[in-house]
Amino acid sequence: MHLLLLNNYININLKQTIMNFLEALNWRYAVKRMNGQKVPQEKVNNILEAARLAPSSAGLQPYKVILVENPELRKKIQEVAFNQPQIAEASHLLIFAAWNEVTPKHVTDYMENIAAVRGIPVASLDQFKNTLLGHITSRTQEQNHQWAARQAYIAFGTAIAAAAVEHVDATPMEGFNPEALDELLGLKEQNLRSVTLLLLGYRDEVNDFLMNAKKVRREKEELVLELA
Amino acid sequence: MHLLLLNNYININLKQTIMNFLEALNWRYAVKRMNGQKVPQEKVNNILEAARLAPSSAGLQPYKVILVENPELRKKIQEVAFNQPQIAEASHLLIFAAWNEVTPKHVTDYMENIAAVRGIPVASLDQFKNTLLGHITSRTQEQNHQWAARQAYIAFGTAIAAAAVEHVDATPMEGFNPEALDELLGLKEQNLRSVTLLLLGYRDEVNDFLMNAKKVRREKEELVLELA
Repeated sequence: MHLLLLNNYININLKQTIMNFLEALNWRYAVKRMNGQKVPQEKVNNILEAARLAPSSAGLQPYKVILVENPELRKKIQEVAFNQPQIAEASHLLIFAAWNEVTPKHVTDYMENIAAVRGIPVASLDQFKNTLLGHITSRTQEQNHQWAARQAYIAFGTAIAAAAVEHVDATPMEGFNPEALDELLGLKEQNLRSVTLLLLGYRDEVNDFLMNAKKVRREKEELVLELA
Repeated sequence: MHLLLLNNYININLKQTIMNFLEALNWRYAVKRMNGQKVPQEKVNNILEAARLAPSSAGLQPYKVILVENPELRKKIQEVAFNQPQIAEASHLLIFAAWNEVTPKHVTDYMENIAAVRGIPVASLDQFKNTLLGHITSRTQEQNHQWAARQAYIAFGTAIAAAAVEHVDATPMEGFNPEALDELLGLKEQNLRSVTLLLLGYRDEVNDFLMNAKKVRREKEELVLELA
């Protein structure tokens, strides 16, 4: 292919991708009722892969993503989430759970993982390791957890965007009792605390009152502050 | 077009979009050195638009995105961010600043905005308004700020993904002194506290040691916990 044509092709392709991305973000909304239809496994995997690739501070990924498909378990989770109908009507539920405590062992394990993946001596990471250890040991464990929760929200945002790109409906959900959910699933014992939920499924086109509502967002002039 | 062909076309198009999205997430990394090249305004606008479209709890968007291009101002910001070189070498800096306090007026203004956008009586939103008021008044303002910060992280994650989709390099950055930055920009007076930064620009292909490093992420089996 002629180089100029190839460049044009790549530019058009990039432009198409960002347009598709913004269209997907416009298309999505927090679905209030779902219809029970299953999301294909390949799409669930792609959404989880996007969450896995999301960045986090120092790359530590101080959280887990818990995948629940089982309807009986979802019914129990619904009871600690104000009985919101989507939890039963969805295809899959993702629970974003941040580490309760961040320990020096987390950091040394992570350094070993970097060294293994990149084929470098673990000692070459000593400066990075000590900086990261300095951060986590200078904070209380509650502060470490809050920091971990923020990182989980980056993965959460990335998963929401990925679902939209897949044209899979989703409901991001903070309205649940985290302590009760942690108790139900035994998360505290696994050094985890649930921080937010994401339901995956398909909108119920008959019963979802929000389906045809216009998206409300602050105007750019109000959201973005441009400093000269 | 024949319906089956149209369906195939849409399916191929969707598959291409998610593949482009995952490829973009794989392509991106936290750039350590940038080359000073400017990011076209259209791409900056698309990244800001993605952040604007990001979801937030109850749709309140309790944050602002501050855009800084001015090199002198970025130099001053660099001084409160451990002199990291990307702040000067980038094209644009985005500061995600969460509301310091969430007030009843924020909620009533938001209800008026929803009513105006959707052309519905504001009184029809009373139940939603009272629920939201109940949430914000039952929490301390520090808790409201931490909640607002988590919402800002969803927009932050969405902007990082949008930059990747645009093939614009970016550096997400938590390493700065938020109090000093708030003081420098007078954010406290505007009910804002800076929570995280995102630099936009282009990688310095000579000096960025991280450019060719293999991406390190936990394996899916380690990150995702599947409950039966």
